[in-house]
Amino acid sequence: MKNKSLMSLVSNSSCVQLNPWFITGFTDGDGCFHISVYKDNIGKTAKFRVSPTFVILLNKKDLKLLTDIREYFGAGTINKASNDTAVRFDIRSLENINSVVIPHFQKYPLKTQKLADFLLFKAAVELVNKGEHLTEEGLSKIMALKASMNKGLTANLI
Amino acid sequence: MKNKSLMSLVSNSSCVQLNPWFITGFTDGDGCFHISVYKDNIGKTAKFRVSPTFVILLNKKDLKLLTDIREYFGAGTINKASNDTAVRFDIRSLENINSVVIPHFQKYPLKTQKLADFLLFKAAVELVNKGEHLTEEGLSKIMALKASMNKGLTANLI
Repeated sequence: MKNKSLMSLVSNSSCVQLNPWFITGFTDGDGCFHISVYKDNIGKTAKFRVSPTFVILLNKKDLKLLTDIREYFGAGTINKASNDTAVRFDIRSLENINSVVIPHFQKYPLKTQKLADFLLFKAAVELVNKGEHLTEEGLSKIMALKASMNKGLTANLI
Repeated sequence: MKNKSLMSLVSNSSCVQLNPWFITGFTDGDGCFHISVYKDNIGKTAKFRVSPTFVILLNKKDLKLLTDIREYFGAGTINKASNDTAVRFDIRSLENINSVVIPHFQKYPLKTQKLADFLLFKAAVELVNKGEHLTEEGLSKIMALKASMNKGLTANLI
């Protein structure tokens, strides 16, 4: 009976649209901004493809929360992670990164050192938006931004 | 000097009140509910002291956020963690657990499996409130609740 009441609380509590600040708080804890760079050998000249991605990786028991987060953003996909106990939500489409991810975190800013990752991510996305990843100079800038991400703010920055 | 600059940053920065849903989202990512049980040998008979604690452990670079969280709850202490790079916020006072921690998470419920930990924590706190931790039966109940915490909901519960 105890289990049953726990279960009904869990299922009832997740029918409501997530609050935007919940999304930011949860991302400050468990979200991640990534920039992947791939060499694309299709065609005569090698080109680089830059893929900015917003990711949340959770235990599969929290799949329901990931579906609520996907509903909040109106974008993203959920897949099994390589680790069998985890599920992964990501938004990879540049259009969605520009139209929902960046506006969300500008309106409801992160509070931890992850804010620095977001700002570096946003700067890289802006370069991709302008097509600068197709130039050597632009790609170097993106690689420099990527190299600084997910390290946290250095002591002299805070 | 590094500590000094960290502290000056904390005191200089403006105090923006955190949104309650940020607190819940961040706790779903990085917070923890603990029940500690100590044997207290003072006096003629051994008694057990039960200490419910709400904890957030963060990199020291995020000290400012912990001070904002402390301000939000109007309670809690911040200390260096045993790990030199981390800082720890906790609310241990039973009065504050009852008056601020439990009401917050009832009004702004957690969305992950951590909700189960909170419900077990709350049940243990209610037993302590009634003094039941001073009886053998009550203490057994608390130990059973404690044993179920921080494991996440089992697959058949969700």
